[in-house]
Amino acid sequence: MKIENPTPLEWRFSERAQKLQSSAIREILKITMRPEIISFAGGLPSPATFPVEQLKVAFDKVLSEQGKVALQYGPTDGYGPLREWVADSLSTNGAKILPNQVLMTSGSQQGLDLLGKVLIDEGSKVLVETPSYLGALQAFSLYGPEFVSVPSDEGGLLPETVATLGQGARMLYALPNFQNPTGRTLSVERRHALVDICARLGLPLIEDDPYGALSYRTEPLPKMLSMNPGGVIYMGSFSKILTPGIRLGYVVAPRPLIEKLEQAKQATDLHTAQLTQMVVYNTIKDGFLNEHIPTIRKLYSDQCDAMLDALKTYFPSECSWTKPEGGMFIWVTLPKHIDSMKLLDEAVQQHVAFVPGAPFYGNTPEKHTLRLSFVTVPPAKIREGIERLGKLIAAKI
Amino acid sequence: MKIENPTPLEWRFSERAQKLQSSAIREILKITMRPEIISFAGGLPSPATFPVEQLKVAFDKVLSEQGKVALQYGPTDGYGPLREWVADSLSTNGAKILPNQVLMTSGSQQGLDLLGKVLIDEGSKVLVETPSYLGALQAFSLYGPEFVSVPSDEGGLLPETVATLGQGARMLYALPNFQNPTGRTLSVERRHALVDICARLGLPLIEDDPYGALSYRTEPLPKMLSMNPGGVIYMGSFSKILTPGIRLGYVVAPRPLIEKLEQAKQATDLHTAQLTQMVVYNTIKDGFLNEHIPTIRKLYSDQCDAMLDALKTYFPSECSWTKPEGGMFIWVTLPKHIDSMKLLDEAVQQHVAFVPGAPFYGNTPEKHTLRLSFVTVPPAKIREGIERLGKLIAAKI
Repeated sequence: MKIENPTPLEWRFSERAQKLQSSAIREILKITMRPEIISFAGGLPSPATFPVEQLKVAFDKVLSEQGKVALQYGPTDGYGPLREWVADSLSTNGAKILPNQVLMTSGSQQGLDLLGKVLIDEGSKVLVETPSYLGALQAFSLYGPEFVSVPSDEGGLLPETVATLGQGARMLYALPNFQNPTGRTLSVERRHALVDICARLGLPLIEDDPYGALSYRTEPLPKMLSMNPGGVIYMGSFSKILTPGIRLGYVVAPRPLIEKLEQAKQATDLHTAQLTQMVVYNTIKDGFLNEHIPTIRKLYSDQCDAMLDALKTYFPSECSWTKPEGGMFIWVTLPKHIDSMKLLDEAVQQHVAFVPGAPFYGNTPEKHTLRLSFVTVPPAKIREGIERLGKLIAAKI
Repeated sequence: MKIENPTPLEWRFSERAQKLQSSAIREILKITMRPEIISFAGGLPSPATFPVEQLKVAFDKVLSEQGKVALQYGPTDGYGPLREWVADSLSTNGAKILPNQVLMTSGSQQGLDLLGKVLIDEGSKVLVETPSYLGALQAFSLYGPEFVSVPSDEGGLLPETVATLGQGARMLYALPNFQNPTGRTLSVERRHALVDICARLGLPLIEDDPYGALSYRTEPLPKMLSMNPGGVIYMGSFSKILTPGIRLGYVVAPRPLIEKLEQAKQATDLHTAQLTQMVVYNTIKDGFLNEHIPTIRKLYSDQCDAMLDALKTYFPSECSWTKPEGGMFIWVTLPKHIDSMKLLDEAVQQHVAFVPGAPFYGNTPEKHTLRLSFVTVPPAKIREGIERLGKLIAAKI
């Protein structure tokens, strides 16, 4: 039988798919992967921090001792001992977290997708920071929310504005530690105020915390989860403290939500690789992260200092930028008439790259902003790149 | 600051989440994991077939030689050499598949979720077999389709019925080889007819093929993909021929759809673990599967024969069942008055388990059906379990 004159397949995509676009960042990354380019555009951790040897030993051990179990289908909620480890690591004197409040996910990004699936209807109000993490905006967008941008200043979001904006909303999404993209940290006072207001509104507060452990100067600030574990949904990740390529994160929440998220995950990918979870558990269970994380902090802190010095030296005084106390990013505000998307074209010609700020806004973008990552570029190259960028900007003032 | 009289958090779930239920199969599996139970309920491959040693060597090799790359964030569409391998393995003389038509996924289940995201709107007509794979019904359900059940007989779905039923539909989902749950195989003639009708309608035809390589007696039948690569979406998996626990599958489709699926995947979990893909590629690139798959076929074929023999011996003549030519499942039809869900309660008391057929129907369930898996139970236990089940059924006739 031959197909004669078949109707050519005209793809009819769902409404949500028609709105999908490739991430501006990933498109830019493709261009900036050329070796001659000094790229501050990446959101990738430094491969120098990946504990390759330790993971190799752990893969060998798990496959040798429990290979058949590690390679079989596993439970949707995750590998028991690792869920226990996560629960213990987040428990405080005032707030005990139980292992059954932990759902392991295929990277933190999957946690965002599952939260969108379970909490967002078409038109649901979702509060986000100004600016916010692009990957979260993308994940939630698939479910058709109406984003409400919470006003902010240098200290991050302004909790008192939530009392009005948050009424009838489905959730508030915040990244309190060394935020992506700004590098800002929410103060302890604002954390308490935000938790308080959300609790009064009955508004689920999502605390996304992939960078929390990467504090340069002080101990990390208390988590909002510890202030009200009944109302805060905490998201963690092994991407920035171990390796991102294994795709392992987790969501911590009250049981009614975890049960729904687990059902959604079952329909989405059945479960996250058991082998990976067993290997991570074996690698970290005896305190490895206590030695390992300080080495990451030191590396990133030195490079952050190099970038801050270079910005001071080479950027025009009309620009301002954040001074992060941890994490991977600095956020630059240019004079208002400079569109950073256009600036990027010129910058790439000068072999230096960054990410324009516009895509990070849930609503009205501030086009004169940009994000710089300092973690994968050595200090000498940081100075060189920032000098070039500074000259380009100075020429426009 | 203390939270005084907070509004207790009343979880407000999305409409799609309110419809979510835990898989009947997974709930049953929890009960039937007790060692004293002879369980035909599983959908798990036999761990005896997992090539633990080969994978251990490959993990060591990849981490030793390319550790930093394997552990970094990777491309959303997948690891290039593995995409090339998949494309080559599916190319035929008449139909060349290109690597950029392949999207690697976190297990085949993720492919189903992504297809639902990209192709299904609320109320979209989606054609499914009668019965169909439960995991697909669950994945698609999240996007609110109207399922249309395509009539079938012992030879699988009836292609001619699609000409009418398929008008205005968004897709047809079929599992032509050793279907889950029935074990049925669609004949070559019906494959051609189905491809032809779908092409005329402009209806995307999803060919889900996790069991295709597990043919017992003959070479696998030609894939529908090879008959019309412009209109067929092919789904493959490493779960049944290597190991399911690593969560690795793929979707093969024309470029316009792959681009949308890739954007959806980016928002869903960024990418599938690069390390896993590199390890699988290293394990299979020199022909390992050519030696390995025949050992799985032999094991499953012997156990399938044992179960068919036992059914003939111990089941009342009022029952009928499929005679699979590959895969993992036999489908039993009981006399109409016997509800297999109720039968399961009694069976578990007799320490034997199966999966009732009802959850596998997109619309009206046939409650007097059930699924048996023979792959994880040795022949002597198969006979014992089928004898017990047969007696239970006989007592009801």
